[in-house]
Amino acid sequence: MSPFTGSAQRTARWRHLEVREEDGVTTVTLARPAKLNALTFEAYADLRDLLAELSHRERPRALVLAGEGRGFCSGGDVDEIIGATLGMDTARLLDFNRMTGQVVRAIREAPFPVVAAVHGVAAGAGAVLALAADFRVADPSARFAFLFTKVGLSGGDMGAAYLLPRVVGLGHATRILMLGEPVRAPEAERIGLLSQVVDEGETQRAAGELARRLADGPALAHAQTKALLTAELDLPLAGAVELDAATQALLMHGEDYQEFHAAFTAKRPPVWRGR
Amino acid sequence: MSPFTGSAQRTARWRHLEVREEDGVTTVTLARPAKLNALTFEAYADLRDLLAELSHRERPRALVLAGEGRGFCSGGDVDEIIGATLGMDTARLLDFNRMTGQVVRAIREAPFPVVAAVHGVAAGAGAVLALAADFRVADPSARFAFLFTKVGLSGGDMGAAYLLPRVVGLGHATRILMLGEPVRAPEAERIGLLSQVVDEGETQRAAGELARRLADGPALAHAQTKALLTAELDLPLAGAVELDAATQALLMHGEDYQEFHAAFTAKRPPVWRGR
Amino acid sequence: MSPFTGSAQRTARWRHLEVREEDGVTTVTLARPAKLNALTFEAYADLRDLLAELSHRERPRALVLAGEGRGFCSGGDVDEIIGATLGMDTARLLDFNRMTGQVVRAIREAPFPVVAAVHGVAAGAGAVLALAADFRVADPSARFAFLFTKVGLSGGDMGAAYLLPRVVGLGHATRILMLGEPVRAPEAERIGLLSQVVDEGETQRAAGELARRLADGPALAHAQTKALLTAELDLPLAGAVELDAATQALLMHGEDYQEFHAAFTAKRPPVWRGR
Repeated sequence: MSPFTGSAQRTARWRHLEVREEDGVTTVTLARPAKLNALTFEAYADLRDLLAELSHRERPRALVLAGEGRGFCSGGDVDEIIGATLGMDTARLLDFNRMTGQVVRAIREAPFPVVAAVHGVAAGAGAVLALAADFRVADPSARFAFLFTKVGLSGGDMGAAYLLPRVVGLGHATRILMLGEPVRAPEAERIGLLSQVVDEGETQRAAGELARRLADGPALAHAQTKALLTAELDLPLAGAVELDAATQALLMHGEDYQEFHAAFTAKRPPVWRGR
Repeated sequence: MSPFTGSAQRTARWRHLEVREEDGVTTVTLARPAKLNALTFEAYADLRDLLAELSHRERPRALVLAGEGRGFCSGGDVDEIIGATLGMDTARLLDFNRMTGQVVRAIREAPFPVVAAVHGVAAGAGAVLALAADFRVADPSARFAFLFTKVGLSGGDMGAAYLLPRVVGLGHATRILMLGEPVRAPEAERIGLLSQVVDEGETQRAAGELARRLADGPALAHAQTKALLTAELDLPLAGAVELDAATQALLMHGEDYQEFHAAFTAKRPPVWRGR
Repeated sequence: MSPFTGSAQRTARWRHLEVREEDGVTTVTLARPAKLNALTFEAYADLRDLLAELSHRERPRALVLAGEGRGFCSGGDVDEIIGATLGMDTARLLDFNRMTGQVVRAIREAPFPVVAAVHGVAAGAGAVLALAADFRVADPSARFAFLFTKVGLSGGDMGAAYLLPRVVGLGHATRILMLGEPVRAPEAERIGLLSQVVDEGETQRAAGELARRLADGPALAHAQTKALLTAELDLPLAGAVELDAATQALLMHGEDYQEFHAAFTAKRPPVWRGR
């Protein structure tokens, strides 16, 4: 729970997502399996608002992002999004595209690690959601498709042209974003797009285990590691080193650091508090 | 054709390059096969001017950069460049080195994708020209050699110390630029320096096919993808996401996006116009 | 020898490091083998001061960083550092963490290449020291462990959250820094963390040979390549290309460039002077 909550109330029910909380691990499931979890305007808005609410209020220690049914997420719905945007004016198009980008920023800037559990298709916006996560756990059925150019749009959507070169290098990223062709699990693993490959059908279980382990561990240390990885992509070396120094000084005042030393000295496992 | 052309005339003939245009695909061939396409001052100037002219006037939808004969390009000519620079004063040396850097910037900033077709040696400036391209199609004979230190110069030449770490990571890039040793096709593929490996002797054909496909596809979407990949290497996440949003809003007003939806609805392949 | 030395005297003896100089190659050995070369406050301070002294005074042409005994370096000493920091106030904690970051900056900004010879464990600060080097030569026993979160601290320590994503990509770096799990030699090689893998027990010999080769080669060109790789991670493309141009113009006035041409013309190997 965040210590700083305002007047805004907790959302009683998310209509476009399934949200489950269990002892510090929040699992968000894209739940439109009949449409391969294709995103609608409202689903994007729910993701944006849920991530803000989780960051400002519930503050889980780890989050799993998964898809129900045959795949992770097929991206923006062709009828409900592409069709609808054809009639929009510029202001509204900017609003929409800024919203989708806000979802990615919310994932990158969330004060907790995000684990994407990817099976089957992760296409378009679905591929970028997974890319924005800190971990991508996938099974052999996983197939990433940054297919934006195939619908006549830029491969740089929701920060993909920023993130993908930093994950797999500029050469692979250019090919993948420009051509929009699928990247299957073996290639994704080879080029560094996957954090962990598991047996067919095991993604949600494995992602849940990883999130559990992150949540039960030194969760503040994990959150700070994520914050620094995010910030230092945009910092010069000198600023990065200074940020590291300030962060470590802070955490050295923390309970978990003290607990590590006490446990190590007593030759017992540490009991992490996440602070 | 660019809508904005000034008084400058189209160059009638490029003396140091072979330039061929075919329905939106321009093929530029380094054509000095007796010298492994070693570059002269005039060849660099031609590359700089040709890329400016193509960007401002002809505006192809894709470009292939290839080398005639036994290899792609052996780099700056030892006699005609290294020998000549030994007698130059500082101002002239700066002029020369700025010109070579302008060629790389022109490739990265060209409003169309560039496909390098690499067979045999790509050495020195030749290796950097290929590195600056969006795609590197190579056959097993390809051999990159960033051999600048071997002539007593910095491995950071024409932007190589900027580009190579972003393509293959800082560790590999340090080794390759510092030692100047050849990187053969299997290693180049493994570390992400190659976009596509083809059978011996097939690079020009395969690069041509890729360029054709890029040109006949949603070419404006491809051009914007390239522009964003180039720009977002130098942007923070927030700026990148905003640039993506503005770009997508723009392209959502475009004909190709509309055509995708019409074709998808009619269950026919889209007919791309590149706008 | 640097041409610019002040009043400060050469340190007669480094109490916490073994320092050996041989014809332009300085070998620094972490020499506390009974504790797996665990670092103390004084050892960090010695590394900081030694690197400054070498940069400003002795100016080797290459440096080897190695560890004596069963491993490279197990990181900060649990008793002498973690225990001691538990009682420190904020100002002192900042002083300590800034000092460790200064060591990393000193390695990255040293005007000579640094070769880490890694065998056995390179953990915590030891892993970051190796990461900051230009080359990592390792044998199959090498095991990197960025285990900061396992003691309740941020994985971003001493610039690791800046450097590791730039060496192995953001995906691998997130996993490695967040989870703190060991990276063994085969994985380290696959993801680009190693520059060279050698047979068991051969790291120091191989690292020494590489340093010798760097020192006996065009050492100024090597130093400039390193400086540009370091700087251009933090520069936009346009600035990087301009820096390259100025650097090459400078080196084209140098003796080694002239010597290359003379040797090439005379069909003899060049005799490098490092200037």
